[in-house]
Amino acid sequence: MTARDEGADLRPIDPSPVVILVRPQMAENIGSVARAMGNGGLFHLRLVAPRDGWPQERAMRTASGAYRILEAAQIYGSVAEAVADLHRVFATCPRPRHIVKPLLSARGAAVELRAIGERGLRMGILFGPERAGLDNDDIAHADSLIRYALNPDFMSLNLAQAVMVMAHEWWMSAAEPTPRRLMTHKTQVATKGELENFLTHLIAECDASGFLRNAPKRPGMVRNIRHFFQRGEVTEQELRTLHGIITELAHGRRGDVI
Amino acid sequence: MTARDEGADLRPIDPSPVVILVRPQMAENIGSVARAMGNGGLFHLRLVAPRDGWPQERAMRTASGAYRILEAAQIYGSVAEAVADLHRVFATCPRPRHIVKPLLSARGAAVELRAIGERGLRMGILFGPERAGLDNDDIAHADSLIRYALNPDFMSLNLAQAVMVMAHEWWMSAAEPTPRRLMTHKTQVATKGELENFLTHLIAECDASGFLRNAPKRPGMVRNIRHFFQRGEVTEQELRTLHGIITELAHGRRGDVI
Repeated sequence: MTARDEGADLRPIDPSPVVILVRPQMAENIGSVARAMGNGGLFHLRLVAPRDGWPQERAMRTASGAYRILEAAQIYGSVAEAVADLHRVFATCPRPRHIVKPLLSARGAAVELRAIGERGLRMGILFGPERAGLDNDDIAHADSLIRYALNPDFMSLNLAQAVMVMAHEWWMSAAEPTPRRLMTHKTQVATKGELENFLTHLIAECDASGFLRNAPKRPGMVRNIRHFFQRGEVTEQELRTLHGIITELAHGRRGDVI
Repeated sequence: MTARDEGADLRPIDPSPVVILVRPQMAENIGSVARAMGNGGLFHLRLVAPRDGWPQERAMRTASGAYRILEAAQIYGSVAEAVADLHRVFATCPRPRHIVKPLLSARGAAVELRAIGERGLRMGILFGPERAGLDNDDIAHADSLIRYALNPDFMSLNLAQAVMVMAHEWWMSAAEPTPRRLMTHKTQVATKGELENFLTHLIAECDASGFLRNAPKRPGMVRNIRHFFQRGEVTEQELRTLHGIITELAHGRRGDVI
């Protein structure tokens, strides 16, 4: 591999998705993931709160030469931080529960990711911890879900196998026709960090107004609000409009005499 | 999985290819292979001269429940014996040398295997030992070669990853194309009329709050708001939530003493 291929920066010259391992447990698995990534031309690895810390010599042993992917891996404390500079986030989710998001196969996701990358947008794929998988709060950061089309009677991939399937589909998708895309014209698709700022604003005002006053129901309601706004790509201009709406609705009458 | 799925016999009722591991070294890898197989609906495992003998407790530990695939595994002393009852044999071969055989990608092979199975023929796929891969004598038993379409600058799959790619392609080769769809569970995607009701509500409150007070800009702003909410499908439940947010933000403080 060349230095360019494994650079830690995301540039249009290498529009491949970031692989984000959320709370990975075994360092050996992280190494095997890097090996799988290299095979499919995925070079950007992020780790959210790896259980045993980082770096780990044991990861190097299973990486089989994919050292530079491991060395360039970026570490984050939370999923929110790990996706903040990305425009689109997919979550692998073998058993989608009560979540309202677009659901794609690995193949469908690869085709869509390819099209997103060709527009110069940054994208990532969340993979959950070995045992439990992603939890609902992790998934709330994603705009789309990926469920592999595999044997429903025995769906049990290890972490590296899961990444391998996606990496293979990513490589294969280079030849696929590109699907629908969002025309943004003069504005741009907002990053997840910009969306997070809006959601923080919205939720704060929902709290202030009393909309979320039911404490037991609040977490689920907050997640549902997040799910909706994650669904379609939102542009920077639209976020400014939405910020404005919330601000005006919540405070617009302060100066008025009604 | 049912007993039928994991039966050791090859019958037309389960026309899936046999996975044949040639001189596998690590028992853990054999277990991981079984796990990968189960995911893709491959249930027939044959081992040619496993280095450490068979059975192996260590294989059970990495199989993650795919025990019956391991228990039904058949052991052979040579590739010739392992393929003797098969009609078609494919060999995975990352670096085909001076060999004149049809060469397929994993995806192409899966499609061809599917067609072979539908004719009631028995088929197998050879995977080589961890380090060296298949040798020329092994490959001589195959009628077709499989070379995965993967990054030529970093082609280095471990055994279970290699089987996983093939298992995934096998399963996908039977599947209908899976387009993007929204999982809505107990709720439903809202009609455009329901969405229109919400947009009317939202825009009325935007007017009331003064957000749309700039008359020349108002039509364009209203269109932008509409564009965003039309983009992703919205569910009936989400619309209720959004109605609630707008109502509370706009009027929640009416009864409050601020």
